[in-house]
Order: sequence, then structure tokens, then C-alpha cells
Amino acid sequence: MNIDDNFVNGWYIEKNPMWPGHGLAIEIKEILYRGQSKYQDICVFDSKVFGKVLLLDGVVQFTESDEFSYQEMITHLPLCGLQNDPKSVLIIGGGDGGVAREVAKYKSIEIIDQAEIDGLVPEISRKYFPNLACGFDDSRHNLHITDGVTLIETCQKDYYDAVIVDCSDPIGPASALFEKPFFEKIYRILKPGGVLCTQCESIWLNMNTIIELAHIHLDIFGKSKGTVNYAYTTVPTYPSGQIGFMISSKPGSNDNDFKTPKRYPDGDLRYYNHDVHRAAHVLPDFATTLLTDYLKN
Amino acid sequence: MNIDDNFVNGWYIEKNPMWPGHGLAIEIKEILYRGQSKYQDICVFDSKVFGKVLLLDGVVQFTESDEFSYQEMITHLPLCGLQNDPKSVLIIGGGDGGVAREVAKYKSIEIIDQAEIDGLVPEISRKYFPNLACGFDDSRHNLHITDGVTLIETCQKDYYDAVIVDCSDPIGPASALFEKPFFEKIYRILKPGGVLCTQCESIWLNMNTIIELAHIHLDIFGKSKGTVNYAYTTVPTYPSGQIGFMISSKPGSNDNDFKTPKRYPDGDLRYYNHDVHRAAHVLPDFATTLLTDYLKN
Repeated sequence: MNIDDNFVNGWYIEKNPMWPGHGLAIEIKEILYRGQSKYQDICVFDSKVFGKVLLLDGVVQFTESDEFSYQEMITHLPLCGLQNDPKSVLIIGGGDGGVAREVAKYKSIEIIDQAEIDGLVPEISRKYFPNLACGFDDSRHNLHITDGVTLIETCQKDYYDAVIVDCSDPIGPASALFEKPFFEKIYRILKPGGVLCTQCESIWLNMNTIIELAHIHLDIFGKSKGTVNYAYTTVPTYPSGQIGFMISSKPGSNDNDFKTPKRYPDGDLRYYNHDVHRAAHVLPDFATTLLTDYLKN
Repeated sequence: MNIDDNFVNGWYIEKNPMWPGHGLAIEIKEILYRGQSKYQDICVFDSKVFGKVLLLDGVVQFTESDEFSYQEMITHLPLCGLQNDPKSVLIIGGGDGGVAREVAKYKSIEIIDQAEIDGLVPEISRKYFPNLACGFDDSRHNLHITDGVTLIETCQKDYYDAVIVDCSDPIGPASALFEKPFFEKIYRILKPGGVLCTQCESIWLNMNTIIELAHIHLDIFGKSKGTVNYAYTTVPTYPSGQIGFMISSKPGSNDNDFKTPKRYPDGDLRYYNHDVHRAAHVLPDFATTLLTDYLKN
């Protein structure tokens, strides 16, 4: 994807076919890196007000100023919602290390496996974003530079307490991570009672994608009440200022209620707390109505 | 304020000293109106994806696509939180008519007074935004084209159940609407148990303004637990994708708990419901900590 036209007079304007007709403009202090990996265009720039910014194919993955909101919520919503203390977690994507950093905050965790398709992303993150890449340094962490879709075929059945899919949008290298065969394979490797949490766009911009994914998850995880949940967090530098997560659980010995938090991680937090956990599942009335109408859940 | 430089190649980029270094870019279909009132630069344009947009001094006041979120929440958070059914409401600002439209949804309401300083705004709204300006047509509604700060000096003591301040940012014509003398005057005209709800910026961008206003409100309304509240709503086309409200109540015969909704308006809603009401008061941990540290509330 050619994003050269998005750099205009010292600003980056995040124009993208996923959200036509608008885009956040960010003033650039200095471009620190620009390169092309096997999979995507990678750019790091220092901004005037948001700290350093990572772009993949021209899309803001995070800024230093607000990344904590996304990383904490995609991690702690599923892990604090589990009935039992988490021991084994698989991260798919998340090549910046931010989710690994959050997962490592649980003392109970023994194994953090991660599959990132693009080896250049962790390399860039180690160089420019040490506060995210520190997640790779935990002794329980194993980074595999490989396609998550093929890695999960080799994993044991009923193995992980949680799988977290921290991917970019469903165009480009992450497109397979929004499709049914991928989620069927994840279901196989989850423990009974285990949880899948996947990046799932914005209710303001991508309701069709959300509804489509909810149908796929209901087909796979089952249609019992509470099996498939949608929650969101606010991120000022993402399109529409927010992003959501689909959180689905494999039937287990206990009925899990992922809207109710059960524990805290053993580390500092800036966005997440138990009140925030509960409130994150409350959507504007139009979104609740739409999801209820489609899902009958 | 000269905003001509914000129009670039068929896009409007909302650059503003209130939020330096970033701004939402919106693709323009057609500019429908541009003019200068006694107070401000007024522009209406039709956009590619958000419907028609109103700019005052170059700042997005609303877009047709998401205005309901702001108008519903600034109105129903205070009015549904009141102990008794609301009868008399004063709106300060809100010249587009959107808040009046929402206030008119309560059958119990007998009087809707409104002070808008700039007579050109309601005129423009009637022409381009009939879905908002319809608020002016309610038989209980009285529009005064005057400065809200002087109007409230002439109002009776203990008269209104609620005052809603729907103003632009604290630069330009609305600056006095963020200062202590203004709020002292509002306190005088509120019934005991009555409520003030005022537009109060974003926790991501304007924490200093929020803390400053909280101090002013605590000084005026008293420091009892629950007297001063902060809640927010998501609005994709506002800076940071959200905006908050400070909701403060005058001591009355009953202790009011504005976090708990007591009723519904008698009209259609798209954003607000009682779950949303409760969740709107739950802030990210960093904001809760900051406000608690400052306010000891």
C-alpha cells in the first residue's frame, strides 16, 4: 500500500479505505524509520503531542501516549474474567510486545506463547518502543516468528487458558484472522472454560464486521447466554476514538461470566480496574439493539 | 479566528490551539454556508460520510451522524438523575436546538427557557439542520437571543429543576461560561435538589480544565459525596472521540444520587439507556485517580 500521499506538510493524515471520508491528522516532529518488510510498510515517527507512533501499512497501531488503554483492555478483560487463575496464554500478532507486557503481569502464568508473522515488527519495537518490547524479556515468554494460523494447527488440544488475537484490520496480512477456519482452530486449542479475545473494530464504523464476527463466534462457541461478549475501550488516536473486542468462551465445567471480573493482575495499571471492566461491556443503545437483534443472545 | 488554512484539497482539518498537534480530517462534499456573525465564524458543510457538519470558529459542533450521542447524554444524564420529575429547565447556549429537542421529550416539563448569545446560530440551524432545530418548535420553549450570563441575573431564585450549559470551548464567546461567577449565579436560580450539567471537555486532552472546574463546583455546590460528578459520552467526531459533562446538584430536601437513573424521557433514544447512564460515570483508572486525588470527594 502506498501511503506517501498521507504525509502532508509535516503532518500524517490517516486516510484509509477502511474508514473513507475521514482520518486523524497528527503533526510530525521527526520520521525515525520507514521501511518495507515482506508483509507491510512500517513507519515510526515522533509526533508533537502523542510521543512516538507506529504505522503499519499507514494505519496507526499505537502512540506512546495512549497505548496503555488498548494493551490493558485486550489483555485484562479476558484474563480477569476467567474463573480460574490463568496459566497458559497464546498471543497471535501483537508484534510490538505490548500485550505480552500485560500478560506477564500475572504471577499465576507459566507459559506465554506468541506467534507474530512479521519478524521486523518486534525488531523495530525493541529499537524504538522499549516500554512495549519489554514484554518479550519475560522468562515465560516464547516468541515464534510465524503465521499464527499455521502455528495453532500444531498446538495441543485443550491447552491454553486464553488466546489473545492482537491484529491489525481485516485488510492486508491480518485478513485470515477474521475468518471462520481460524477461530475453529483456536477453539480446539482452548481449555474448557478458556477464553478467546480478539480485536474487533468500532461500533461507530464497522458494525457489519462486528455482526459478522459475532455470528461466526456463536456458531463455534455455542449460543448460550454469555458465551460471546463485546466490550470496548477508548483510544483517542484510533478511528472514532475507540476500539472493541469480541470475548468468547469455550464451554467448561463452570459457566463463565466474562462481564464479571474475578482478579487483578499483579502489576501497575493505568486504564483498567474492575468498574471499568463492567462498564466496558455497556454499549450505546443503538449498538445493544443491533447486536441483540442479530444475535438473539 | 481565521480558519481558511484548515480547508485543504477538499478536506477540512480541525486544527485548533485547544488541541495542538492533531485534528480530525473530514472530506467535504459541498460547502453550504460560510459567514461571520457578531461573535464567530460559522460554516456548514456537507461531508462525504458524516452528513452535514456545523463549525463555529472552525470547531466541529456536531455532525448529523453522531450528534444524538452528545445531545442525549448532556440532557438525560441530569434530567433522569433528578429525584423528582423535571418541570422547568434552562438551556444556556445550544443554539442548534438539539438539547431543546431532547428536553422536550419529558411530558412532565412545563417550561423550557433558553439563552443563546448568537442569533445567527438558530437561524442557520433552522435552515440546514431541521432535525435539531425542531427543538425550538415545542410550545413550552422560549428562546431568548441574549447573553446567558446576564439573563440568569434576572431569573427568580430557586426556580429551575435543571440548567444545562451546552457551550463551545473555553476560548471565544463561551469563555465566561467556564468561570466561577457564572456558576454562582446558576446556583442561585436552581431549586434545592436541582441540577447543573455543563459541557466539560475530554479526560484525554483537558484534565486541567476539568480539575479546575471541579474545584469551582465543589466550592459552590458543597463538598458532600456525590455533589459533583463527571460523566462522559463517546462522539467520534470530537477531539479524542469523547466529551464529558460536570453534573453538580444543589443541596435539597432529598440527597440526590445522580449516578442512579430514576426515569426515562417519553421519546425515542439512540444512545442513552439506564445501563449507559451508570457506565458513563465510570472513568479510566488514571482519570479516577487524578480526580479523586484532587477532589478528595
